[in-house]
Amino acid sequence: MKKKILVIGIGAGNPEHVTVQAINALNEAKVFFVLDKGEAAEDLVRLREEICARYIRNSDYRVVKAVNPPRDRADRDYLSAVDRWHHDRATLYQQLIQDELQDGECGAFLVWGDPSLYDSTLRILDQVLANGVVDFDCEVIPGISSPQALAAAHRMPLNRIGEPVRFTTGRRISEEIGDVSGSSVVFLDDGTALTAIADQDLEIYWGAYLGTPEEMLVSGRLPEVAGEIAEKRLKARQERGWIMDLYLLRRSRPQ
Amino acid sequence: MKKKILVIGIGAGNPEHVTVQAINALNEAKVFFVLDKGEAAEDLVRLREEICARYIRNSDYRVVKAVNPPRDRADRDYLSAVDRWHHDRATLYQQLIQDELQDGECGAFLVWGDPSLYDSTLRILDQVLANGVVDFDCEVIPGISSPQALAAAHRMPLNRIGEPVRFTTGRRISEEIGDVSGSSVVFLDDGTALTAIADQDLEIYWGAYLGTPEEMLVSGRLPEVAGEIAEKRLKARQERGWIMDLYLLRRSRPQ
Repeated sequence: MKKKILVIGIGAGNPEHVTVQAINALNEAKVFFVLDKGEAAEDLVRLREEICARYIRNSDYRVVKAVNPPRDRADRDYLSAVDRWHHDRATLYQQLIQDELQDGECGAFLVWGDPSLYDSTLRILDQVLANGVVDFDCEVIPGISSPQALAAAHRMPLNRIGEPVRFTTGRRISEEIGDVSGSSVVFLDDGTALTAIADQDLEIYWGAYLGTPEEMLVSGRLPEVAGEIAEKRLKARQERGWIMDLYLLRRSRPQ
Repeated sequence: MKKKILVIGIGAGNPEHVTVQAINALNEAKVFFVLDKGEAAEDLVRLREEICARYIRNSDYRVVKAVNPPRDRADRDYLSAVDRWHHDRATLYQQLIQDELQDGECGAFLVWGDPSLYDSTLRILDQVLANGVVDFDCEVIPGISSPQALAAAHRMPLNRIGEPVRFTTGRRISEEIGDVSGSSVVFLDDGTALTAIADQDLEIYWGAYLGTPEEMLVSGRLPEVAGEIAEKRLKARQERGWIMDLYLLRRSRPQ
């Protein structure tokens, strides 16, 4: 009997983002691997525990906690730093699956948002399989992602009619924004990228802590609201110790 | 008491894509507006009825069916044709909300996938509000979208590390693919666009009827699998009378 790994998207922060498929998957798993790191760890572990407590009907499951190895942020070659980081994580995941999961047992990784967007769990599990030391079947359960929570909160479509929408990162947006047609959703910006383009004639729809009671929203012309966003971002981060936010940008339409 | 309209994303085809938030919204609504058109209408109405029957606890709701006005496909100016089509639909929606929903009552539109991606319900409701004839509050409930179902079925992330992913349409992909970095998810291609770029050195991940028992998947190098996809697409469409499919493209990575 092969081991089975479920990679479950649990939504962008609201426990009610969880799908019926995810609830069934939560009830199928007997071992939950919880890997966290950094300043948001405590709040995020609590939210995940809340989801487990709310939706899992039997208590015959185990939670295995481990600390994700840190990424080397001093390395200026982003891709090589990420490569090494993934290698370290693959070593850890392999060990966990080997030691903590019996043959025939089902384990689960719970992923914020959707496992298909800016999350490395699937890539790392692929690497574990490629190592050839442990074998398992893998199933992916999609979840509501943060761009969807952002769009729902602002009650707007992500794309304009017939136009594309691009999901990208804070690292890339300053160079991409010049030639972007359509809309761009920016992940993983610590505030630097937004400050760098704050004078551009763009519309912005920003959100933080999406789907939670602490949800914050700002929208408007970027040059007019960039200062307000930077201020709210800093204040919230200081108060809670962490922030998760993202935003959509698009060129203002000629009247 | 104001009227209230819920725009509920119900997932990409699998009834278990429905979220807990959507289930609560389904149970809050007393009137469901079902607007369909075209060849897929019958199957899609049945799937929606299945979702209502499965998740709504009381039967004290009404279903109001109407036929969406058709879009003028002879008009070669795409944007003006869509504009007129939205105008016709706004007129219909306004009438429905005015006639079928009492003050203080809650109505719902069920949207396949997510209301924020290549769906016009929110735009049309904005237009109805702008007309100023009927007034209502509007709430959006995000749902699992077809790109997420595609990624989950292929057990892959949509983006490569540090790269963007673009959601675009069949109308645009042939011109965009030349300068695309990262990955592109293509919506609304009737097969024409894929045939036009079939000789390009790309990887493709294709899926049809995602999340349903009839789900079909093909992946590989585009020049090698384009024929197989075209054939399967045509056959399935002939057998069922309609097809819903989409695909992800990305440049093969230099070894």
